[in-house]
Parts: sequence; structure tokens; C-alpha cells
Amino acid sequence: MNSLYNHRHSLAHVLAQAIQRSLDPKVQLGTGPAIENGFYYDVLLSDGIEFWEANLKPLQKIMEGIVKEGQGFGSYTAKNLEEAKAIVTNLGQHFKIELLDKFFAADNNAQYTFWYNYVDAQMLPRLEKNCDAGYIATYKSLTEYFTDLDNSVAGKFLTFIDLCEGWHVESLKDIADGSFALEKIAGAYRQAKDTNPMMTRIYGIAFETKTELKDYQTMMEEAKKRDHRILGKQLKLFTISELVGSGLPLFQPNGMIVRKEIEDYLRSLHKEHGYSRVWTPHIAKEDLYNTSGHAKHYLDDMFKVHGGTSNEDFYLKPMNCPHHMQLFADNQFSYRDMPIRYFEPATVYRDEKTGQLSWLTRVRSITQDDGHLFCRITQLKDEITTIVKIIKEFYKTMGMLDGYRVSLSVRGEDKEKYLGGEEVRSTAEWALKEICDELGLNYKEIPGEAAFYGPKLDFMFKDAIGRQHQLATVQVDFNLPQRFDLSFVNEAGENERPVVIHRAIAGSLERFMGVMIEHFAGAFPLWMAPIQMMITPVADVFNDYAFELNSQFKSHDLRSRVDEGSDSFAKKIRNAELLKIPYILIVGEKEVSDNSVSVRVYKTKEQYTMSVEEFVAKMESEVKERVL
Amino acid sequence: MNSLYNHRHSLAHVLAQAIQRSLDPKVQLGTGPAIENGFYYDVLLSDGIEFWEANLKPLQKIMEGIVKEGQGFGSYTAKNLEEAKAIVTNLGQHFKIELLDKFFAADNNAQYTFWYNYVDAQMLPRLEKNCDAGYIATYKSLTEYFTDLDNSVAGKFLTFIDLCEGWHVESLKDIADGSFALEKIAGAYRQAKDTNPMMTRIYGIAFETKTELKDYQTMMEEAKKRDHRILGKQLKLFTISELVGSGLPLFQPNGMIVRKEIEDYLRSLHKEHGYSRVWTPHIAKEDLYNTSGHAKHYLDDMFKVHGGTSNEDFYLKPMNCPHHMQLFADNQFSYRDMPIRYFEPATVYRDEKTGQLSWLTRVRSITQDDGHLFCRITQLKDEITTIVKIIKEFYKTMGMLDGYRVSLSVRGEDKEKYLGGEEVRSTAEWALKEICDELGLNYKEIPGEAAFYGPKLDFMFKDAIGRQHQLATVQVDFNLPQRFDLSFVNEAGENERPVVIHRAIAGSLERFMGVMIEHFAGAFPLWMAPIQMMITPVADVFNDYAFELNSQFKSHDLRSRVDEGSDSFAKKIRNAELLKIPYILIVGEKEVSDNSVSVRVYKTKEQYTMSVEEFVAKMESEVKERVL
Repeated sequence: MNSLYNHRHSLAHVLAQAIQRSLDPKVQLGTGPAIENGFYYDVLLSDGIEFWEANLKPLQKIMEGIVKEGQGFGSYTAKNLEEAKAIVTNLGQHFKIELLDKFFAADNNAQYTFWYNYVDAQMLPRLEKNCDAGYIATYKSLTEYFTDLDNSVAGKFLTFIDLCEGWHVESLKDIADGSFALEKIAGAYRQAKDTNPMMTRIYGIAFETKTELKDYQTMMEEAKKRDHRILGKQLKLFTISELVGSGLPLFQPNGMIVRKEIEDYLRSLHKEHGYSRVWTPHIAKEDLYNTSGHAKHYLDDMFKVHGGTSNEDFYLKPMNCPHHMQLFADNQFSYRDMPIRYFEPATVYRDEKTGQLSWLTRVRSITQDDGHLFCRITQLKDEITTIVKIIKEFYKTMGMLDGYRVSLSVRGEDKEKYLGGEEVRSTAEWALKEICDELGLNYKEIPGEAAFYGPKLDFMFKDAIGRQHQLATVQVDFNLPQRFDLSFVNEAGENERPVVIHRAIAGSLERFMGVMIEHFAGAFPLWMAPIQMMITPVADVFNDYAFELNSQFKSHDLRSRVDEGSDSFAKKIRNAELLKIPYILIVGEKEVSDNSVSVRVYKTKEQYTMSVEEFVAKMESEVKERVL
Repeated sequence: MNSLYNHRHSLAHVLAQAIQRSLDPKVQLGTGPAIENGFYYDVLLSDGIEFWEANLKPLQKIMEGIVKEGQGFGSYTAKNLEEAKAIVTNLGQHFKIELLDKFFAADNNAQYTFWYNYVDAQMLPRLEKNCDAGYIATYKSLTEYFTDLDNSVAGKFLTFIDLCEGWHVESLKDIADGSFALEKIAGAYRQAKDTNPMMTRIYGIAFETKTELKDYQTMMEEAKKRDHRILGKQLKLFTISELVGSGLPLFQPNGMIVRKEIEDYLRSLHKEHGYSRVWTPHIAKEDLYNTSGHAKHYLDDMFKVHGGTSNEDFYLKPMNCPHHMQLFADNQFSYRDMPIRYFEPATVYRDEKTGQLSWLTRVRSITQDDGHLFCRITQLKDEITTIVKIIKEFYKTMGMLDGYRVSLSVRGEDKEKYLGGEEVRSTAEWALKEICDELGLNYKEIPGEAAFYGPKLDFMFKDAIGRQHQLATVQVDFNLPQRFDLSFVNEAGENERPVVIHRAIAGSLERFMGVMIEHFAGAFPLWMAPIQMMITPVADVFNDYAFELNSQFKSHDLRSRVDEGSDSFAKKIRNAELLKIPYILIVGEKEVSDNSVSVRVYKTKEQYTMSVEEFVAKMESEVKERVL
């Protein structure tokens, strides 16, 4: 485990110790793992003891005190299940007994390891100042507690003990001042079963340094303002309907404009590079997934479909590749036709537990900008170079190219377990590496991370507030062409097997939309904005001029509206700003007389007056160039 | 039943009689209904008797002879099941006994009616000349056969009898000479069950006049040449995959170009008229269909969806309306926002028996150019006028506006059973009628054909060979807004219920593509053609010029290809013609020297030479104007 994991995991123990010390010496401990950005602990508090948001700060103070004590971490492995149970019983931790039984059931030679914190004897008086009386009584000399430990721990006293696989920092001295904070509380059923007792889950965030913690907190503050769930409602982008179901967002006209602009841009990038649009149905028989091999590993995540009239079974497609293999297979291609490039922005469906779904970022209906290429091994490098160029161009336009990272997953030591054969596989890996070098990508080679079917490139991009998102991917596949027995006729008149490249630029359009809403904080660049200009007459008499402008903009394919409502002028300006409309155009007597518009720019707060002709030209060019 | 139905049904009996007379007196009769364009009879021939395509013509001759005999038709209803069974046993028709039992099981007061043919005694000698000896023995005097008939049939002799609900012509004299023909044979399991014996199905076609039959035969000859199943393969438009399943066509790049051009044209027509694109997922919970009311009547045709991970049930959407209601419901609209117009070209799924599916024309995956409007009753007329204009414009572009027909379905006598109330319903009907009159539509009002939820307009269009297709539809709906409790705020600040209009222009894009392939016989107009021009160099040395032209066309968004293959020049021209490419451009020394192209036009066989510049301009304008 890396050092940040150890930090976070150690802090989960500190959290539990802090609760025992200050709040509830008899607290029942559930599980306390390290998680992304921090840690949590699930605890069942004794009867009559309650924990509220308001308790987070005081508890954090206690944790800070414990960290300052510089307690050490050590581990002890019980000789057998009986000894382990004796220790746990001694601690009065009932959930841990359940856990021991579970370990034993899974493997009756399981190791039962305890991790403990300790201090030297001379620290005891200081601790006593920090602790509740009930808790202090539990201190024991380590040697007294674990009979089998060597003399190095003589004179050391136990402050906390937990059944735990590890790992931790060597000493709490390794945890920097102010590098962690308690964050929030939630209810969580024991082992996620709703028949088990509801526990209190206390979340903390933790980083290696105080600065990193501050940066993260600032980012989260900023993220709250950009929350796509709130902006989605405010800007009327999408709808979640209880009647339709969870994880199945419906796109409102405004959201659809943003989505269509992204889709159209993706399509134009693909068309330029020789891709052909194809279309395949959303369902297929199990036979297709037996042939592709997905049925064996993926069936649980797929939606099963049953036709009552025909009494036939199908599956909702969880990916497009098997369908695209069928499109290729229905042709007799020659080497002259290669490569074949299919593009299909299609919605696929994957089942997840309702509780794991989240608005646009975790959905069941996933619209992928999916594409599959069929090429010769010698064409691999050119084809992937083109894809990487598309990816870079697309993310540059989105303002996300700064600080991107690429991981190149290649084979590990055991070369036997990979498909394709040594020569072909190393050629493919070499091609990917060459591309990364030639295009100067910021990449890292990760041995052993490749799929059995081929190497791949994964692209991580940073959004405007520094959050990383894994978005684009390029995967080489030697498996599907074999399973579907695909071939083309080569120069020698023989059947040759093509290589397949899977690739997605934006990935899931739903998730990408979620990322974009937060990346732009809802203030989309002109080309994506649902309403590009709001025309606001200073009085009703200028409505005619406003509508005249509106038609003129429409004829230039610009999306404008006139606010002819009964609100005050100031209110109209505020409304347009709430909708984050890029340009507010104010029209009054002066504008009518010289055929101009007074412009307020949402992002820069700039104001200027311009002739209508000039303004239209400026807008057209801004849209065409997809200016940020 | 109309008279054409009676004609066709009578001819099914004549067909069975002809088989008994000439081929197999002991033939076992299955069922023999009238169908679209004709009739068929399912028969089980006695052991050792076979029937081939070659037997059709001679059998037809026998039928023509029978028709010339001018036999009468009469019916007799048995007193009870026993009598009916006695008659059928007497006839030796085992399948009919099954049928009687089936009738009885369904209703034990069922009527058992026989329809018979008869001749006067003086016709008998003539009949005898036309019949096999074995058959003649079955003649009986009618009064001898049915004891209960009155004296009017005295002296008449039975020539054929069948258990049959009717109806028929009064006499075979009513069937015009040469107005029918036997068409083809097929195998068909008795009652469509594959455990039952396989019978011989003999198909005939029949019309009221000889001319109509001839016209139909000419049309069918022409239709064969245009068969979208054959052209689909030849032009590589779509694929049917066994692994994916029946009724689920996959669109190849060429088919997708045609489909996209149609879609894009539809989208542009909608955008011009103020429609907003929306997007909704392909699945929804049953709750949605309980609210919409579809669950009650439509569930059998819907595909049920089950998520294994979530253990939740959904349905594949069979139409978009319920989803669109949810989009509307998530807004607080005011009268100023009305009408709201949603457009979503979405794929819906409907289950059908596998045997009923047919390539593009009868599918399970149906992509509708679906739209829903929400408006006030006072806006109905304007909105529908716009839709009808879109429909007319679209079909004019497709060259299908000549001879179109519209049916206007309104309420029947019993006004109680219709939703919306008298005033609203008659306003809606009046609006539709006014539109039909004002736009000079060729329409027919059909009382009693309206759905309970509202009146509608259905559009029938003729293809190039005169076949009629019901394609566009506009339906007014007072039901869904009520079921979903939709409202907007009117001028008085009160909630007002909107009216919904359902409308589709092309209908199902799959079916429409099938119609288009046959309508254009695969020779699509330039704007729809997958490959618009094939550039054919007369020798390899002109390849460079050919590719230069190719890039130039591409930069003008024209779809051209260069045939640089090793085929002879003549073969290349033939290949391009087989692909029905609108323009073949021949380039050689002369074209290179004066920067021109020699053009062969596929449709007109015209040939001319033109400067490249002029040709590009001509192509661009032809695409832009969507010239036929």
C-alpha cells in the first residue's frame, strides 16, 4: 500500500480511539477503511449517546491531540482463532467476533492480526489529562496484554487495539499537523444489510500535507457551487423522474442543446477522419454474448429482456462491440478496404444497485461515443495516432488539456496469459509507446495492467477546479476478432485476421455532461450554450426591434431570446445572469437609431456597444472556432 | 364484408373445389381465407399426390372452368353440434371436426354454418365432362343432403361444401373473367403449430376486374426488381444477424448514410418550425405505463426488462409519449410558453412473433420520428396546420405527394364514449376539418374511427409503382394530459390543462427506409445516395487526377470514390451501375488537360462533359434542393 493509504488508514484508528477516549468507552466498532480522499469509521454508540454534526469539530480536536502524542503502531498475530476470540471478547467488541467467524468460514487457516497503538510509560500522565476516566482504566502494559511479544515493547502501554489487516504509519509522528479533518456523518447499515443495525458513519478527509488538505477543501467548496444536480435544475437541463426510474435521466430541450453540440462536434471530428456512422439495435440474443464471451463474465450487469408475445429472450446491450463485429462479418473485405472504421453514438444499459446511482455521473443509460476500428497490425500505429489526435483536439476545445495524464497498460511478467502471441503483442505495445513518445504525451507505462486481450491507453483530464476524470480510452483487442472469426482477404489471397481497436473520446455522454456542467459551472462557452443571447429591451416600445434582432440571429443559426416579460429591467438582467447566458443585449432608443446592440458579457462582466452586423460576425466566429 | 372480400373468399372455395375435382377427391381441407390482394387455401393432399409450382397453371384453368359454370352459393346452419359433425363426417373432412370442437369449446351455443355451391340439374352433364370420376360420385341433390332446406333448392345439385362463416358472392357469375390467378405455393403447419402436419398452402390473387389484376401483376413484377431485401444486400445497406435476432436490422455505413439524410432532413424541418430536441431513455418502470394507461392494454406487446443486480423491473418503451409527459411535468409553464413542442427521433421496441417479422418492413426495433406538442385548444388549428405543411413538404421532396389520401377519424354516434367533452371534442374535429378544407387535402371523414382519446388524421402515400403506404399521422389526445395531470398557468393565474398532439412524419424509419429503397428501386436521389459519384480513370496514369478530384468533392461535402481497382474499364462502369451510383465520372487525358469530367448519369443514361467547377456547383445545388 502507498504511504497516503497508510496515513488515511491510521487516521481511521485515531478516530475510533478518539471516540473511546472522549465520547463512549464502550462504543462498538464496525469497519474503518481508508477511502478516496480520506477515511471513515462505522460505529454503534452506546444507548443514550448521540452524535451530531456539531460534535465533529470537538472530536477532531481530540484526534489532533492523539496525533500529537506520537503514538506508535504495532501488530500482533494471534496463534489461533481461540486466542483471537479471547482478545476480542476482552475488548468487548461484538462485531469483531462476527468478523473473526467470517474470516474462519472463508479460510480456516486465516491469519488473525491485530493492530495496536502504544505509548511509552512516561507518556501516561500526559494521556491521562486527555482522557475520560472510564477509558484510562483500559490501559495495559503491552507485555501484559500479549504474552508472546518480545522485550522491545517492555514498558510500553496499549492505547487502542483493533482487528485489522493493516497497514499504517509507523508512528503518528508521521502525520502532519492540520493534514486531516472530520467531514460529515451518515447512517449506514452494518455490512450494508438493511436488516442489520444502523450505525453512525463518521467521514474524515486526509492528505499528506496541510496545503493539500486546504486545496482539497477549497476545491470542494467550489465544487458545491458547481454541483451539476443543482445547476441541472436551475438551467433546466435534465429531469429525473420517479415514474421512469433511477439512473435514467431525461434530457430537457436545454440539456439536449448542450448534448447535441458535444455530439455534433464529436461526429464532425470522426467524419473528418474517415469514420462511417453505423446503427445497431439496443437488444440482442444471448447467442451474441456467448460468442463475444461477455455472457460468461458480464451477465450480472446486463438487463435481461423478455418478449411476452414471442416468448423470446434478449439482453439490453451493455456495449456496442459485439454488434459491430456482426456488421464487419457481413462483408467480404479485401486488404484494399482496410482499415474499416465504425462510429456509433449509442445508448447502452448496465444495471447497478439503485443506491449507487447518482444523477448524471452514475447512470444506467450510458450513451457512448463509441467506435470500433478493424485494421492490420501494420496499420495500428497510424490509426491510434489519429485517435490520440482527436482526443487531444477535443479536450483542448473543452479547455481540459492542461495537466492531462495518460496510462499505458502493457503485459506483466507472465507473458503466457496474454492473447495475440509474443510478436504481435510486442508490436502493439511498441506502437503505443512510439505514439506516446512521438506525440509527447505525458504518460506512464504500467506493466501488468493490460487486459488479456490487448494493451490500452487511458486518458485522465483535470477539470477547472483540478478534479481528475478518467474519460477517453483506446484499447487494442486481439480477442473479439478471433471469437467472431473475422477476416479479410490479403494480397496473397489468404484470409487474414484483423485487429480491433475500441475507442471512446468523451466516454459516457451522460457522465461527460455532468463533468462539463461542473467544469464550466453552468456558464457554457457560446457554442454549447442553450440560450446564447438574451435580448432585453429597456422598455416595451423597443420590443419590435428586439424581435427583429431575434429573427436576424435565428437566420444565422444563433440561439437568442427576447425577454418581453413584465419584470423590471433590473430583474430581467438578474434572471439572464441566473441562467448564465453568455451575452445580454440591451436595446433602447440609441440602439434602435444606429442599429446596434449594447452588450454585457456574462463571464468577463465587460460591457460594450457594437453594430448588429459586427456583433453577428463576432458571434458566428466565436461559435465556429468554439471559443472557450 | 365488402364485395372484394366476398369475391376473394368465394375463390378460396373454388380453389378447394378445383382440387377435389381434378387432383385429389379426398383432399383434407384446412382453412381458406380471403387475404390482402387475394386468398389461399391450406390443404393436406392424399398420400402419393404431390403439388408443384408447375401444377398452378392447370389448376387455375380448372378454377376458370368452375367459375364459368356460374355455380350458386348458399348456406345452411346445422341444428346442433351433432348434425354439424354428421355432415362433416359424411364429407370425410377430419380437420373440420377439430374446428367444430374448437367452436364448441369457445361457445357452446355456437352456430355451425356451411356454405355450399350448387348447380341446376341441367348443368350436370357439362360438369361431368370437367370432373374426375371419383369426384362426380359425391354429387347429391341438395334436398337430399340437407333435409331442412325449403323447396327453392329442389332440383339443385351440390358441387362443394365447406364449414365456413361466409361471406361469398351470390353466384360465380359475379366473378369477372380473368380477374384472378393462382400465384404460388408454400408449406404451412396446420394452425401454425410446428407439431401439427405440414400442409400445402396455395395462394391466389384476385380483383374485381381483369385490368386490376393485370395492373397488380405488373406492379408485383416491378416490385420484385425493387425488393428491399435484395437491394439491401446488393447495395450493402443493412444486415440481419442471427446472433442479434429477428426483426432487429443493423445498419451498415451505406444504409446509415441514407437513414441519416432522411433523419437530418426531418430534423431541419422540425427545427424550422420551433420544435426542441429532447432525449429520453429506452426503459422505464411499470409505474410510468400504469399512469399512462398503456400497461392495461399494451403490456403483451412490450418487452419486459429485468436488472439482475438491482432486482428491479422495467419495460422497453413501446412509444415515447409517456416519457415526454414527464418532461413537460417537470416544468412550471405559463400560457406565454405554450405551445411546447418536443421532437425525439427515438427507437422504441415492440414484440411480435418471429414469423411475422419481415426485414425492414416489420421489425421489433422501430425508430420513430416522434414528436409531441402541448398546446391550448385554441392553438390546435395553427399547430396542426404546421404539421400538415411539414408532411406535405416532406413527401413532395420524396416524390410521393401525387395521389395521396387522408382519412379524418371523428366520433361515431355514441358521443358518450369519447373523452374531452362535447365542446372541446367538436372544436377539435372542426379544427381538423377546417385544416383539411383550407389546405385542400384529399380527405375523407370517417365517423366512428376516432380513438376514445381524440380525433386523428392518417396519411396514405403512393410509391413509384402505385402501392399505398400508411405513413404520416397526426393525433389529438385529451387523455394523457389528464392521466398525468398536466397543466400550465393561464392569464387568470389558474391551472389549465393542455391538449397533446402526437405526430410522426415518416413513421418508423426502418419501415420508411424499406419503402424508400423500393420507391427509388435503390437508385436514390443524389442527396440520399451513399456514394454520389464514382470516379473512374480510363487508365492508372490518371489516378492522381482522380484522387485530386475526390479530395475536391470531399471538401464540398460530396460523397465520391475512386475506382482504382484492377478491373477492366468496362467492368468498372458495370460495377458502378450495379451500385446505382447517380454519377459516373470518367477521367482520361482530355479531362486532365482541361480540368473537366465526363459524366454518365445513371437514371437518364445521359452523357456530357463539364468543367470540374461547374460540375461541383451543379452537384451542390442538386443536393441542397434535394432534387429527385
